Amino acid sequence: MTNGAEAILQTLIDNDVRVCFANPGTSEMHLVAALDSFPQMRAVLCLFEGVATGAADGYGRMAGSPAATLLHLGPGLANGMANLHNARRAGTALLNIVGDHAASHQDLDSPLQSDIRSAAGVVSTWVGRPAGVADLGPAVIEGLQAGGVATLIVPADVSWSDGAEPGGRVPRAQTPSESGPAGASERVREVLRSGEPVAFLLDGSVLTEAGLAAADRIAQVSGARVFCPTWPARWRRGAGVPRATPISYRAETVREQLDGIRHLVLVEARPPVTSFAYPGQEGRLVAPGVDVHELEGGVAALSALADELAPEVIARLAESRPAELPTGTLNADNWAYVVSALLPDEAILVDEAITSGLTVLPDAFAGAPAHDVLGLTGLAIGQGLPLAAGAAIACPDRPVVCLEADGSAMYTLSALWTHAREQLNITTVILNNRSYAILRAEMGRVGATAIGPSAASMMDLVGPDLDFVSLSQGMGVPATRATTAEELAAQFKTATSTPGPHLIEAVLTSDR
Amino acid sequence: MTNGAEAILQTLIDNDVRVCFANPGTSEMHLVAALDSFPQMRAVLCLFEGVATGAADGYGRMAGSPAATLLHLGPGLANGMANLHNARRAGTALLNIVGDHAASHQDLDSPLQSDIRSAAGVVSTWVGRPAGVADLGPAVIEGLQAGGVATLIVPADVSWSDGAEPGGRVPRAQTPSESGPAGASERVREVLRSGEPVAFLLDGSVLTEAGLAAADRIAQVSGARVFCPTWPARWRRGAGVPRATPISYRAETVREQLDGIRHLVLVEARPPVTSFAYPGQEGRLVAPGVDVHELEGGVAALSALADELAPEVIARLAESRPAELPTGTLNADNWAYVVSALLPDEAILVDEAITSGLTVLPDAFAGAPAHDVLGLTGLAIGQGLPLAAGAAIACPDRPVVCLEADGSAMYTLSALWTHAREQLNITTVILNNRSYAILRAEMGRVGATAIGPSAASMMDLVGPDLDFVSLSQGMGVPATRATTAEELAAQFKTATSTPGPHLIEAVLTSDR
Repeated sequence: MTNGAEAILQTLIDNDVRVCFANPGTSEMHLVAALDSFPQMRAVLCLFEGVATGAADGYGRMAGSPAATLLHLGPGLANGMANLHNARRAGTALLNIVGDHAASHQDLDSPLQSDIRSAAGVVSTWVGRPAGVADLGPAVIEGLQAGGVATLIVPADVSWSDGAEPGGRVPRAQTPSESGPAGASERVREVLRSGEPVAFLLDGSVLTEAGLAAADRIAQVSGARVFCPTWPARWRRGAGVPRATPISYRAETVREQLDGIRHLVLVEARPPVTSFAYPGQEGRLVAPGVDVHELEGGVAALSALADELAPEVIARLAESRPAELPTGTLNADNWAYVVSALLPDEAILVDEAITSGLTVLPDAFAGAPAHDVLGLTGLAIGQGLPLAAGAAIACPDRPVVCLEADGSAMYTLSALWTHAREQLNITTVILNNRSYAILRAEMGRVGATAIGPSAASMMDLVGPDLDFVSLSQGMGVPATRATTAEELAAQFKTATSTPGPHLIEAVLTSDR
Repeated sequence: MTNGAEAILQTLIDNDVRVCFANPGTSEMHLVAALDSFPQMRAVLCLFEGVATGAADGYGRMAGSPAATLLHLGPGLANGMANLHNARRAGTALLNIVGDHAASHQDLDSPLQSDIRSAAGVVSTWVGRPAGVADLGPAVIEGLQAGGVATLIVPADVSWSDGAEPGGRVPRAQTPSESGPAGASERVREVLRSGEPVAFLLDGSVLTEAGLAAADRIAQVSGARVFCPTWPARWRRGAGVPRATPISYRAETVREQLDGIRHLVLVEARPPVTSFAYPGQEGRLVAPGVDVHELEGGVAALSALADELAPEVIARLAESRPAELPTGTLNADNWAYVVSALLPDEAILVDEAITSGLTVLPDAFAGAPAHDVLGLTGLAIGQGLPLAAGAAIACPDRPVVCLEADGSAMYTLSALWTHAREQLNITTVILNNRSYAILRAEMGRVGATAIGPSAASMMDLVGPDLDFVSLSQGMGVPATRATTAEELAAQFKTATSTPGPHLIEAVLTSDR
């Protein structure tokens, strides 16, 4: 006899879901118990649900296939929601399994009773809740086919009841580039032939070598500019890869970047807008006279267009241009060149550097060895350390470098314990500027220019200072502190050449 | 001219809301900027939203008046939801202020856009979202009068627009004991006079000395048993206080506790149920033949009943019965007697000890100096450290002792930084049994008896061990480790007699 929990695991395994990031409780105990019968499923314990969901996002972005999470009732889901928000914005496919009370327990107003479905709906493209074992297999399949963040709410009695049947094996959900029409839209072709100034904004599966190459070939014959979002879900960058330019976080700079264009062509991308509203400013970053076009069909469509418009043209690849190792005291302007100069080949670069990375990262890493960048897609901070865990599990043979702002690190710091427990090859660099530095910048931008002591105390992470070396060691990750570029270089070399996780606290000085 | 942010702060201050636990972002910058104009408002920075909401709950339970929280958009609210769930179950009044994008920004699909209202509805008794400054003052008032967890969603343009007016001063929402009918219900009086076996289950405002005294007087003339929940929101206990017995977490024990009764009288309490459903077991803990009655009117009604039924009777007070200091290696059975023996007078005891406290705490603390216990009302773990922060801010002259399970501590560990920054008189005792011990117990209870290595790895917090001394020091809280009762005693004495926060990692051995 197969119980519901076993049928869920069998269905996941049959569909190549082999990793489950878990923070279970009593209502998920049958799923935990079933793990020992399914050694093909790797269960990774996380000490907080936001670590589990962020890791599933990182896994999905790098593996290209979904991971599962295992979460405990409504509060467990709530703790995972911020990183599910990021995953939803990244378009990552993953399946949350959220335990619920048994049917007999639903009306008893017991301590953990809550409206799980409403919470799940906020961050999910699909929510299912099988009422009995007969509905279970099909529900798991439906969740996997939904494509994005799917949430399966499983009442405990459905987990423990016998008579369940796995849902079988089904084709994976198609990604946008596989499902769209193969031909470029006629209108985009006309635009490119018109000679009018064009910019491309690429995202999703187009930020691969193939997609970037197609865009670059078109750019060579049309003069089009090629952009990507500030924080893409996954972007291939560095030596040997055709370039794209990130849209700036600052509206003024974006207007310069897009100055003079007549058409903006979006390929799997959203129209560029400011992250926040500011008094008296327009949130749309596309000037009123610019026509916005969507090219459907992703890489295939873009490649077809390149073959048609630039048949003889070969994509230009970024040259290898190793950064020069800076010297002296670390600050927001020089740290990134140390990491870039010493970046291992085929690194996965998790970018939650926030203020410390905004202006410096694109230049610092343009000529570094080819790597994949994973960005903060939904701006819900606390993504980096969990995302790194999932990426490292998806790609055990690739080094992961996690660039992590001090304030952001504190939201999901216990991810470090999972880095240690799973002995993941992750080098975390904490950019410690001892503040929510971005808020100081934003304060002026919203028109609140006089910062008094109370307001300052909401933005400065001092009194006491956070000691990330101590915090990291407390979770089993070896750690060092760097205050100069030379120290960072030496420590980064050691960390990336030694298996397992490491953390470097880079203390950044500022001019304020 | 008063902008929306200023009107909110003025309204809060006019209504005696003087503390705001904050983790703000760009959309809340005008509220942050306004803080400097309102020195009567104490803003307490938290490094994670779950710390802010848990602290507001702790403040509300001890101050008896609401605190505010300041949270950043949907993901910020989501991070705070687990502790709002606990606050909702505790019946704590608090006001969440959640920033939202300006109206002009709502349709732009910007990175942090989400359905805040749906998420808020899951944990709130009241949700409001003023569309303009004219609605703002009245909305703040409505939220404060709602009484429970109220969530005010404030679009950024409402915060920054001028022409706002404060909402004025209004009477506080009445607590249940003030609003119910003063006379006891006729049916309860009949039951108590019938001579049939009766038990009281008290909660809410009844677990004060006055409420407990009234129940005890009635018990003396009727033979009634007096119970409280396993994890009450706030319970007065110890020497000089009339006793109540906590309903056990274990269903078997509850059935013994209630064995033979014919009537159960609930006073501000929910009917007792198991926390979780177990296969083949009844979730209701009240036997089918028992009549359940609700006594409305809280302490006033219970006192009136005591005056009527037991006019000459004086409540029995628990004797001072200091625990004997145990010796030898620390374990789950002896640590609580160390803390009890050395408990300072008028302590606030935050109880998130989970498995390490379930069986031992009621006995260990029954004869300790009088104290208030704050329990894990909604079973969403990660409550203790934040709750302690809020309680310490509400009662700066009382020592706070936070009993914290290792697994639970990791959900909201950054609360320690707030303990340090605000120099709160909190002694945290981490009960480190290196496992989610409760899950091992629950595993058997759900019928999953064979625990293999995969399942075990989901419950054992080893490989690496967590070093709470290092973690605590990393956030500025001095810390020590105790492995024997003697060490715990010495360290606890020092910690509670030295101002500011301290943490003791009590390493508990087990027999497994």
